[in-house]
Amino acid sequence: SRMSLSMDNPVFRAFAFYAALSILKMFCCTFLTIFKRMTGGIFANQEDCDFAQVKKPVIDEGVERVRRNHLNDIENVIPFVLIGGFYVALNPSYSAALWHFRLFFFSRLVHFVSYQLHLQPFRALAFGVGLLATLSMLWSVISATL
Amino acid sequence: SRMSLSMDNPVFRAFAFYAALSILKMFCCTFLTIFKRMTGGIFANQEDCDFAQVKKPVIDEGVERVRRNHLNDIENVIPFVLIGGFYVALNPSYSAALWHFRLFFFSRLVHFVSYQLHLQPFRALAFGVGLLATLSMLWSVISATL
Amino acid sequence: SRMSLSMDNPVFRAFAFYAALSILKMFCCTFLTIFKRMTGGIFANQEDCDFAQVKKPVIDEGVERVRRNHLNDIENVIPFVLIGGFYVALNPSYSAALWHFRLFFFSRLVHFVSYQLHLQPFRALAFGVGLLATLSMLWSVISATL
Repeated sequence: SRMSLSMDNPVFRAFAFYAALSILKMFCCTFLTIFKRMTGGIFANQEDCDFAQVKKPVIDEGVERVRRNHLNDIENVIPFVLIGGFYVALNPSYSAALWHFRLFFFSRLVHFVSYQLHLQPFRALAFGVGLLATLSMLWSVISATL
Repeated sequence: SRMSLSMDNPVFRAFAFYAALSILKMFCCTFLTIFKRMTGGIFANQEDCDFAQVKKPVIDEGVERVRRNHLNDIENVIPFVLIGGFYVALNPSYSAALWHFRLFFFSRLVHFVSYQLHLQPFRALAFGVGLLATLSMLWSVISATL
Repeated sequence: SRMSLSMDNPVFRAFAFYAALSILKMFCCTFLTIFKRMTGGIFANQEDCDFAQVKKPVIDEGVERVRRNHLNDIENVIPFVLIGGFYVALNPSYSAALWHFRLFFFSRLVHFVSYQLHLQPFRALAFGVGLLATLSMLWSVISATL
């Protein structure tokens, strides 16, 4: 158990990999926001408008959708990574851990695509699967440290 | 010190427990948002409205209050968990650490209840106590690594 | 590699220091929001207005600017700290790691000052430098755990 939070531990390596992929997915919201703001001339600050030579800050539903998606990622991906660290420290079985990480990452990928393509109930289902993966790890941590 | 970030360390176990409880508290905002959106037919996206057979996205003060509460949790609970990890790695005394974790978690519980029941100055006080617990750990980390 | 995530490891100590400073920088948005709300009588909840004896919740561009800055910190500082932990576990060279941490922290400091003083393109450049530092560590983690 001394080696739990170390790259020598295959569970930690798998966690690092899927956590990094999930954070990269979160940054896709950053990239998409920048792309939509630049191409549409849609900015939140007057100095950005001045620099891009557009009139004034506007609210755009396309940009707001990405912002809501990003906030949803913050509310879900960050707790997954934080709880995941404690879960790995419990030395779970490799296959149980791997399935939690995989399910989480792929559910957030489906969530992102469904959100940007306006697809329901796929987005809600993907959200639910990701949340359940995190709650299952959270339950493991609480019950083991009670 | 080798065993700091491991379940063999009682300080780490206590930290894992209170960090997990604090994150669960944060997810209570998720559950409450879903409940208020579903029961009130209040959604942020047109495809959600279509699926629930309500007309169009609306802004509702009850939902917005939970959203503000959730964002406040993100701004406070996540820094607590991140700083807490470094603080545990400093090998603080068990009782000092436990009091930081307990104070933080209970202050955020009081903050949540006061926020949803519109209670001031209880919410402000609870916010302040939680912030002080985090800043105290932050100060320990900075002064030890300077 | 057993000692990676421990204060015995100089890379971890440097990471703890710059991560704590970056989180303290993030809390500067909290302090500035409180200061602007208090001095201007600008609140988001009716019970806060009642307590401060002002009429009703208002939207203020000065407060909103700090809120946008805070959210940008959440979107960037938190991923830096999370990814940084995995990066340290890879046992990178001390100087490479230190430059990533320093570049990130100073870029976020410049970002904060430029945001509050309405300075472009300095804010955009500082944002880009911080993002690149995080993406470089993210790439190291993904390529090492693939």
